Amino acid sequence: MNFYFDYISPYAYIAWTQIHALAEKYGRDVTPIPVLFGGLLSDSGRLGPAETPLMRRWVGKNILRKCRDLNIPLAAPATHPFNPLLALRATALDMSNEQRRRLIDLLFEATWVTSQDVTDPAVVGALLAKVGLDPDSGLAQTQQPAIKERIKQNTAHAIEAGAFGVPTVVVDGELFWGHDDLHYLEKFLRGEEAVSQADLDAWEKVQPSIVRRR
Amino acid sequence: MNFYFDYISPYAYIAWTQIHALAEKYGRDVTPIPVLFGGLLSDSGRLGPAETPLMRRWVGKNILRKCRDLNIPLAAPATHPFNPLLALRATALDMSNEQRRRLIDLLFEATWVTSQDVTDPAVVGALLAKVGLDPDSGLAQTQQPAIKERIKQNTAHAIEAGAFGVPTVVVDGELFWGHDDLHYLEKFLRGEEAVSQADLDAWEKVQPSIVRRR
Repeated sequence: MNFYFDYISPYAYIAWTQIHALAEKYGRDVTPIPVLFGGLLSDSGRLGPAETPLMRRWVGKNILRKCRDLNIPLAAPATHPFNPLLALRATALDMSNEQRRRLIDLLFEATWVTSQDVTDPAVVGALLAKVGLDPDSGLAQTQQPAIKERIKQNTAHAIEAGAFGVPTVVVDGELFWGHDDLHYLEKFLRGEEAVSQADLDAWEKVQPSIVRRR
Repeated sequence: MNFYFDYISPYAYIAWTQIHALAEKYGRDVTPIPVLFGGLLSDSGRLGPAETPLMRRWVGKNILRKCRDLNIPLAAPATHPFNPLLALRATALDMSNEQRRRLIDLLFEATWVTSQDVTDPAVVGALLAKVGLDPDSGLAQTQQPAIKERIKQNTAHAIEAGAFGVPTVVVDGELFWGHDDLHYLEKFLRGEEAVSQADLDAWEKVQPSIVRRR
């Protein structure tokens, strides 16, 4: 199943710590796809959860509550929001699936556990080295059009698949959004999807009777 | 505890079906406070979940999945988004706590279970009659400044309390948002709050290193 993510999202971090066990339980593979969350937001016109003061405050509590429930570590990031493009592009370099999974582990950990600044090439280079890639060559490639284009294309594909945020999981054409949706993803994987096409058709036919002034 | 809600939100409907049992379990009262969700969105600059096509599609599935998990009814609404002011103002009329709770039950049910149009005075008037209020006098009062002002003030108070969406529960100064947060509300009521002031201070100190172009 496709796992669309951006390091900027603490919910993507949380979901990443859970998705592999879930996939293995149901004999599925996880294909991690780094995308620019800001690109998804710009497409839909939405604001990110950290872009408004009241919601940002709530997010700070909510991610701590979730991580403590799940018994996974979380620390305040070095900076947030930050530009995730370097970390995303490093993730899109050519490497084996095993290296990529490990690199994603390390970049999420750097961001959300050890409060490192993943906009810093020195930080990202050190993590590339940890997974066995040449940091100088890797960092140089992140500045090349071919790698930049991969993140753009990933983001465009995510939008085509219906994504409006991260984390998003798409499996068998079905979309799940956010850590909270993993519960429904598991039901889907068990063959217990509660929603029928008739349900969805009824919802799709609902017409607005007001448009909010903005 | 204060329960801020708007009939326009299916998540407010879902939470309303759960909040009373939760409150009773921990010896708390529920004070329902009708607010204009659009006012909260305008304050924060956010878009509602039904205001962007991709998220609206996901919401249609998510609310069905939630309702089937909880074994509560849900049907496609008559129209959505709709202008909730008449229903909100009717809820703010003078009446007993018991009448108000019953009226809220009926208005949520009309909107999200029996697909009635609660922007229609005839629909709202019939529900006022069901709880023992005079429909003509009640409907007339919803057009008076005093009642209109109550919804404005409720919405302003919700924002002051930190609300950016509905449903929002505020108890002992702590804010919980959305149906998904009822899990953490219950932990809080049990005295098992996971988040300390030091945690929050660390998060509040995080500075942005980028501002997304909009």
